[in-house]
Amino acid sequence: MVTKAEFPEVVWGEHKSAAQVLASLQRIAERQGMAAATRVGSRVAAEVCALDAAVSYVEPARMLVLKSDTTKQQKLPGSVALICAGTADVGVVEECRVMLAAAGCYAFKLAESGVMGMHRIVQNLDAVKAADVVICITGMDGGLASVVAGLVEVPVIALPTSTGYGAAFSGVAPMLAALNSSAPGVCVVNIDSGFGASMAAWRILKNAARIRQALTKA
Amino acid sequence: MVTKAEFPEVVWGEHKSAAQVLASLQRIAERQGMAAATRVGSRVAAEVCALDAAVSYVEPARMLVLKSDTTKQQKLPGSVALICAGTADVGVVEECRVMLAAAGCYAFKLAESGVMGMHRIVQNLDAVKAADVVICITGMDGGLASVVAGLVEVPVIALPTSTGYGAAFSGVAPMLAALNSSAPGVCVVNIDSGFGASMAAWRILKNAARIRQALTKA
Amino acid sequence: MVTKAEFPEVVWGEHKSAAQVLASLQRIAERQGMAAATRVGSRVAAEVCALDAAVSYVEPARMLVLKSDTTKQQKLPGSVALICAGTADVGVVEECRVMLAAAGCYAFKLAESGVMGMHRIVQNLDAVKAADVVICITGMDGGLASVVAGLVEVPVIALPTSTGYGAAFSGVAPMLAALNSSAPGVCVVNIDSGFGASMAAWRILKNAARIRQALTKA
Amino acid sequence: MVTKAEFPEVVWGEHKSAAQVLASLQRIAERQGMAAATRVGSRVAAEVCALDAAVSYVEPARMLVLKSDTTKQQKLPGSVALICAGTADVGVVEECRVMLAAAGCYAFKLAESGVMGMHRIVQNLDAVKAADVVICITGMDGGLASVVAGLVEVPVIALPTSTGYGAAFSGVAPMLAALNSSAPGVCVVNIDSGFGASMAAWRILKNAARIRQALTKA
Amino acid sequence: MVTKAEFPEVVWGEHKSAAQVLASLQRIAERQGMAAATRVGSRVAAEVCALDAAVSYVEPARMLVLKSDTTKQQKLPGSVALICAGTADVGVVEECRVMLAAAGCYAFKLAESGVMGMHRIVQNLDAVKAADVVICITGMDGGLASVVAGLVEVPVIALPTSTGYGAAFSGVAPMLAALNSSAPGVCVVNIDSGFGASMAAWRILKNAARIRQALTKA
Amino acid sequence: MVTKAEFPEVVWGEHKSAAQVLASLQRIAERQGMAAATRVGSRVAAEVCALDAAVSYVEPARMLVLKSDTTKQQKLPGSVALICAGTADVGVVEECRVMLAAAGCYAFKLAESGVMGMHRIVQNLDAVKAADVVICITGMDGGLASVVAGLVEVPVIALPTSTGYGAAFSGVAPMLAALNSSAPGVCVVNIDSGFGASMAAWRILKNAARIRQALTKA
Amino acid sequence: MVTKAEFPEVVWGEHKSAAQVLASLQRIAERQGMAAATRVGSRVAAEVCALDAAVSYVEPARMLVLKSDTTKQQKLPGSVALICAGTADVGVVEECRVMLAAAGCYAFKLAESGVMGMHRIVQNLDAVKAADVVICITGMDGGLASVVAGLVEVPVIALPTSTGYGAAFSGVAPMLAALNSSAPGVCVVNIDSGFGASMAAWRILKNAARIRQALTKA
Amino acid sequence: MVTKAEFPEVVWGEHKSAAQVLASLQRIAERQGMAAATRVGSRVAAEVCALDAAVSYVEPARMLVLKSDTTKQQKLPGSVALICAGTADVGVVEECRVMLAAAGCYAFKLAESGVMGMHRIVQNLDAVKAADVVICITGMDGGLASVVAGLVEVPVIALPTSTGYGAAFSGVAPMLAALNSSAPGVCVVNIDSGFGASMAAWRILKNAARIRQALTKA
Repeated sequence: MVTKAEFPEVVWGEHKSAAQVLASLQRIAERQGMAAATRVGSRVAAEVCALDAAVSYVEPARMLVLKSDTTKQQKLPGSVALICAGTADVGVVEECRVMLAAAGCYAFKLAESGVMGMHRIVQNLDAVKAADVVICITGMDGGLASVVAGLVEVPVIALPTSTGYGAAFSGVAPMLAALNSSAPGVCVVNIDSGFGASMAAWRILKNAARIRQALTKA
Repeated sequence: MVTKAEFPEVVWGEHKSAAQVLASLQRIAERQGMAAATRVGSRVAAEVCALDAAVSYVEPARMLVLKSDTTKQQKLPGSVALICAGTADVGVVEECRVMLAAAGCYAFKLAESGVMGMHRIVQNLDAVKAADVVICITGMDGGLASVVAGLVEVPVIALPTSTGYGAAFSGVAPMLAALNSSAPGVCVVNIDSGFGASMAAWRILKNAARIRQALTKA
Repeated sequence: MVTKAEFPEVVWGEHKSAAQVLASLQRIAERQGMAAATRVGSRVAAEVCALDAAVSYVEPARMLVLKSDTTKQQKLPGSVALICAGTADVGVVEECRVMLAAAGCYAFKLAESGVMGMHRIVQNLDAVKAADVVICITGMDGGLASVVAGLVEVPVIALPTSTGYGAAFSGVAPMLAALNSSAPGVCVVNIDSGFGASMAAWRILKNAARIRQALTKA
Repeated sequence: MVTKAEFPEVVWGEHKSAAQVLASLQRIAERQGMAAATRVGSRVAAEVCALDAAVSYVEPARMLVLKSDTTKQQKLPGSVALICAGTADVGVVEECRVMLAAAGCYAFKLAESGVMGMHRIVQNLDAVKAADVVICITGMDGGLASVVAGLVEVPVIALPTSTGYGAAFSGVAPMLAALNSSAPGVCVVNIDSGFGASMAAWRILKNAARIRQALTKA
Repeated sequence: MVTKAEFPEVVWGEHKSAAQVLASLQRIAERQGMAAATRVGSRVAAEVCALDAAVSYVEPARMLVLKSDTTKQQKLPGSVALICAGTADVGVVEECRVMLAAAGCYAFKLAESGVMGMHRIVQNLDAVKAADVVICITGMDGGLASVVAGLVEVPVIALPTSTGYGAAFSGVAPMLAALNSSAPGVCVVNIDSGFGASMAAWRILKNAARIRQALTKA
Repeated sequence: MVTKAEFPEVVWGEHKSAAQVLASLQRIAERQGMAAATRVGSRVAAEVCALDAAVSYVEPARMLVLKSDTTKQQKLPGSVALICAGTADVGVVEECRVMLAAAGCYAFKLAESGVMGMHRIVQNLDAVKAADVVICITGMDGGLASVVAGLVEVPVIALPTSTGYGAAFSGVAPMLAALNSSAPGVCVVNIDSGFGASMAAWRILKNAARIRQALTKA
Repeated sequence: MVTKAEFPEVVWGEHKSAAQVLASLQRIAERQGMAAATRVGSRVAAEVCALDAAVSYVEPARMLVLKSDTTKQQKLPGSVALICAGTADVGVVEECRVMLAAAGCYAFKLAESGVMGMHRIVQNLDAVKAADVVICITGMDGGLASVVAGLVEVPVIALPTSTGYGAAFSGVAPMLAALNSSAPGVCVVNIDSGFGASMAAWRILKNAARIRQALTKA
Repeated sequence: MVTKAEFPEVVWGEHKSAAQVLASLQRIAERQGMAAATRVGSRVAAEVCALDAAVSYVEPARMLVLKSDTTKQQKLPGSVALICAGTADVGVVEECRVMLAAAGCYAFKLAESGVMGMHRIVQNLDAVKAADVVICITGMDGGLASVVAGLVEVPVIALPTSTGYGAAFSGVAPMLAALNSSAPGVCVVNIDSGFGASMAAWRILKNAARIRQALTKA
């Protein structure tokens, strides 16, 4: 019989009441040690936090986090580099950060590192090269993913954002730029999908963990 | 000083003469043991093959391949599963296959495995789960990547194709479907970009190889 | 002289006052035994319900329902299967459910049955195959209609929803996916059009009823 | 175990040699009594016809037909009305006609019956109302499906065509018009997809046949 | 020296204060006998009406009207037929009606006359044929202009509206349908542009008036 | 009983044989004194001209013309100004010219009169103002219609062309520009539709003729 | 070592608190003599102005300005002409004006100078020709840039605005018109990007200043 | 009286015979010392070259050049940097080069300098900074203009090309990227418009020449 793959479980907060969200968070945290809910508006978030003081709200990411027993949490070896330009994309960056934490992945952030701040990427290039995956969070012209992917051999995920205006068309411009990257092997997730980019990174770390496990067993 | 990453070198055949293509193939094969050229029309291909009998033409992929001394070729451990539906996408599938071979990656193909042939995927699920990356080559409704990504935890790259007509809009329909996958963590490359999907897979295998190397050293 | 076809009458609630909506509901219920109004905001809905206690509000569908004398209602034999994924599409699903009830059609719902919940469709496949029409309510990647249509021979109507974000383009992605279904003979209605899908289903049940009538007469 | 639905088998002719097409036609005709191949260019068609005199080419539809033993063919009761405007859509109309014949469905054609020829539809309204499905083949403004669907209660499938130029955008204009039909319950298939419309009609006739069978058994 | 054409002057109300709008209305009414302002929100409208009791607000059209001395108003002979479907387009229809009145053109309205209400057009066909221009106000499938233009020889202006949802794309669907009209010689103005359609009608009546004048002079 | 409007009959040449085209031309010329066929390729055109020496081919317009007895032709009083920029739009301009001639309308052409040749329009402004309709044939930026419509009060029809490249998107750019004209009352027909613009002009002249007739009768 | 270019520094106000905006303004004004912040909503603006009386709010441009010691400000020789049509674009025009002032560039405005007000451009043509750059702020049909660029040889920057409705598609129509200008050498910046147009103008003035400097040195 | 600006005259070769092209070239060369024709196919080009040996064909640019008396040619001081990535854009690059030569502007080329070849730009940065204008010819992801514009203060014109496939949408992707450049003040011309970019550069050099002239006079 075909068994479903086991992905890190996350609560989709939209269209749900505070009670529903909290119940799901508690159920998942019980098992995973940590639980997160996405797309939670500030009103519902306040209600949930009032009901359970252990829940905290990451406002820019519109996410709720419940850490119960972090020793229970399955940690994956390896690391994810989050590279982004300005403060405009902070919501999407934070969604990645919280999501990856909930999925047991270690992530570090290189901010102010857009096309106008390439020197910061160059300064931190060794850390980026040592990561197992790079997520380039990239609004406006979307050039960041191409530039980074030309410098490193590790897997690069472009996460276009809806930052910008006019002919950015709510993220279409950076999405197309990333799909047409002149550096080889960039792959792309949906606009503003911190969730999607994190899960794609999780798949890569998970596979690497399997390899590590096989080798250390042997 | 910043050093460029070292990607597998491939000849972009468009707008080049037979002599130019052959020279590049020979230079790369000398170093890499095997060389490939993409986007080569049948006329130029015939000329190149006439000039050097060691070159062969993979017609559906519009690629030329020159194998000189395969012992020189750097092979990466691990494997790539190529899943596709019908014969319509054969050109893109073949571009992946040749590209991955040229990049030293082992790939195997599951054909006739679209949404209408899910039983074939289920029959081969163990092999797919054992792969390090899955590339879903997917025209028309693009549903294949979602379905596969729901069954396996390994990295999934959706490669939309321009197969189809009318409201497929030359690959836009499957590209959008893949970007909106209901299974978590699918990532997407450009329409018909066998090259892009292969290089994204290469990045993942390359990173896994680095992990293997580090562990076996230790 | 050409006589107009007789479709089930429904009140289009938009841009109408509570009094206007109620008058229309009462006129229709008088004749059809049951009446429904679509696109009714919560404020107008509250006013109508205050005016006539027999009217109830189906909030997620933004519809008002007035049942007067259900013995008057013309019931069509046969059934409609409503298949949907998560809670995000509940508004559109409910619009179908209420609409079909108002049109005298029996409908049953298979929830949590998206591409990630295929096992639930498989478990209920006999019921789906026994239905006269299947409506697949499908946001995001729109793959649901293709998968279902590959399993059953009964008519399949894809009802794309505006659920999702970014490159879902408010329902364009699942609409295109459904129009390009790799399973044969899927047909599609407008995005979020619970009304359209229900009326298309009604046409099929109505025609089947005519066949039944002709055969039992004979 | 889940068994696949049994759709009428058709040969997809694109990218196939004459020998491959013929072999498939013969295999299917052997079982179904009649076989058809779509998307066959004139050159391959001529080759196939030269190989087997029993095969004939329906040029406007770019289809090949092989009738072996028509007594073997499973015929479905009921009828399909094909309504179209001018000669420009003849290819798509013919694809429907041949496709439906191969699927065992009886179809009749109302030509010259676009928005500018409504009188012809009115003259033949009884026949249209007696059909089990209407397929409106409709380029340019796509108004035909709305007009017809306002006159009859039977299921209406809009089949937009790429006829027209400029702002018709290769069938997008009539496709959008049909998706927004002001008559209730029109459903839509892909642009130029005679195959899709026919299979959607087949599903409706097949279901009606099942009803007939159940009633006559009882 | 090139002199500018003299169009009926209208106040564009957007981004203007009540005092500014009123001053413009009074200046124009002084000269033209009647003045109108478009795109006036309800708040500014209330302020203007409070300042000058002679001004009235046509709420669905979001227009203000000031009639001072209607004997001063230049009336054009001839008439404009406004044909529309349901109540959803009432704002655009009213913008036409007020606009034409301010421009000295006589207009009459045929409501509930969409594709589903063709019998009403047929009943009033003589009046429509006697008009000098027909404006078809048409949301959703936009089929109305084609149908009307097939019945009359007088100039037909299609005025697409943003009524509808999903694949209507805020008026794009009916705009494309009108641009691809299968009836000859339909011309189209911008979505929701009651102003544009009225001024196009004014040009035709104005030209007809010039002809009348020339003939009666002679 | 509803009688169809009587439009000037024209042969749609696409997908027709030389014999079919000629037969239609002869039938129409017999009645109208002159007949025209549109969308005729050079090969079919040569065949028709070889069959009947009275037929001539207007190559840039891809039209055939047959004049039999021009005394039979119904001429409409008034005139149409055709304003265009460069030689690139000559095909569309010629389609208008031939079409209008076949419809009995007098037309004159102002060439080299685009936005870069405004002085030529200014020099000929009296003739333009004396016309009953102006057709602005306008590729690239589509600014011509706005500029002309700001100078004259007569009806202005914008006929966008597919001339240009890149972001002209085969006529979309000038079509959008014309739909958004800053001069009041410009109306628009489909891209490259010399037929549509001519028939819209015919409607205006026809209506003016009716007015003339009524006044001269009285 | 590569040194970054030195652009005039501006505060991007979006997503920032009043305190953050003020701190940045003061830091920049300290160095540049004048500082500006863009995309500041009225609430934050009021807070900033309350904190520091030297800051003023340019409401239509949604910008804050802080002038400290204007003798410190680096002024560039030359001038920029801002040409615009009506009051609708005032926000974008003001963003240009303030931005250029903050960048040390002298600008003058020609208002009411759209395609319908060409006489005003002609009257002021000498001033326009004497400018070093012309910025055409242009909504709706976007024809302004073409017309102006046909009259002058100085660099012309088209700045499309989101003014308009329906088929203006929030600035897409004028953007496409400008990209397809029939006058040679128009270049285009993003929709509503007063910032972008001003910086492009600054680059031209800066380069001209360098030339002046080189010549006067010599 | 308004006098037209005097732009360098160029022959638009499309839709013209060899004789017409040659006559125009000779007339312009007579006056300007050098003349060029764009959009000339290879067949017409061969005819022109056969008629006049002084004419040469620049095949990748599809341009003809006639140099008569280069002492007559008006040369503008200053220089234009043409920066491009690979060989794929050679046609557009050459159109710029020939166009600028014909307009009397000095241009130099930095090839192989895309996002993957940034080191070449860095090596040549002094030359680029010394130029008066930079034209970035940029297909695929269009990131080149952003990167270059972040390094230099001189005017930067992005010239997107139709190079690429799939989601490059024939130049739309790099065009949008350039319009959304994260570096300030990039301006953009139409896709593949070597003509447009060159004329925009010419305007800047021309204006700089006027400044030089004024200063040296004084």
